[in-house]
Amino acid sequence: MTRENAAAMLTRADTPGPLYFEDFAVGQVYRSGTFAVDTAAIKAFATQFDPQPFHLDEAAAKGTLFGGLAASGFHTAALTMRLLVDGGAPIAGGIIGAGLDELRWPRPVRPGDVLHTESEVMEKRDFRSRPKEGLVKMRTTTLNQNGEAVQVMVANLLVPRRVG
Amino acid sequence: MTRENAAAMLTRADTPGPLYFEDFAVGQVYRSGTFAVDTAAIKAFATQFDPQPFHLDEAAAKGTLFGGLAASGFHTAALTMRLLVDGGAPIAGGIIGAGLDELRWPRPVRPGDVLHTESEVMEKRDFRSRPKEGLVKMRTTTLNQNGEAVQVMVANLLVPRRVG
Repeated sequence: MTRENAAAMLTRADTPGPLYFEDFAVGQVYRSGTFAVDTAAIKAFATQFDPQPFHLDEAAAKGTLFGGLAASGFHTAALTMRLLVDGGAPIAGGIIGAGLDELRWPRPVRPGDVLHTESEVMEKRDFRSRPKEGLVKMRTTTLNQNGEAVQVMVANLLVPRRVG
Repeated sequence: MTRENAAAMLTRADTPGPLYFEDFAVGQVYRSGTFAVDTAAIKAFATQFDPQPFHLDEAAAKGTLFGGLAASGFHTAALTMRLLVDGGAPIAGGIIGAGLDELRWPRPVRPGDVLHTESEVMEKRDFRSRPKEGLVKMRTTTLNQNGEAVQVMVANLLVPRRVG
């Protein structure tokens, strides 16, 4: 997929930004725009990063656990990141993850799926070694056009505090 | 990065395969081949999936937490998957993750880094709903050329049992 195609398939998020540590509250939910996944994108990612038959070839995928062509889980993760960067998690200074507590793929992403993310603030914590920042634990669920979860990710994000 | 470049930068893993559930034992370690990461690859991934200044532009990255151009964490994850598929985790039928318990990036991947993975079997479990398969919990550490961990990932993998 070209950069232009990717941009054309994105819609804007309905969340404001940029947000600082003080702006987040437990229970808040941020929603991203959408992204349409096609066969070419699934195969292009798989060719480069996850060249296994169920991500590369429709016929070969039929006989596997997936029962048909499915996106690599790390492709789903990468697309989720793109949705977050494009407005799904409007954090001041960008989205910087200290790490993930969990990453699950309850069902595969298929060609034609249209994805969006919903991110809920689970916890806020001070970050002792970095007084200018705080940790926000956020659970981001990536959903397809039928409202089915294709990925659940719990991330610890480094979020700057307002100065002064 | 083109597919040809990617192939050229890969070396072979020194682990045998394919392995079935019965072949794995707690404590075993599997080591992948290596992969060299360059500036163009870091920017290409970021352009498509994580377009933030610290992954795209050397000058802009200097003023951020990263202090210089760094690969997206999901790029590191995708490269790790490629190393595992190319021999770092020689599982019969392919590498199918039920999910990750943890994914951390202790330090960033920089242009010029040469990565490899070391995967240790942490636990084996029966998988009640799937008698033909078992779950193998594996901790994969991705290391740079200085032996420093750039990623730690704990994955629950679906591994087929030998038939009969």
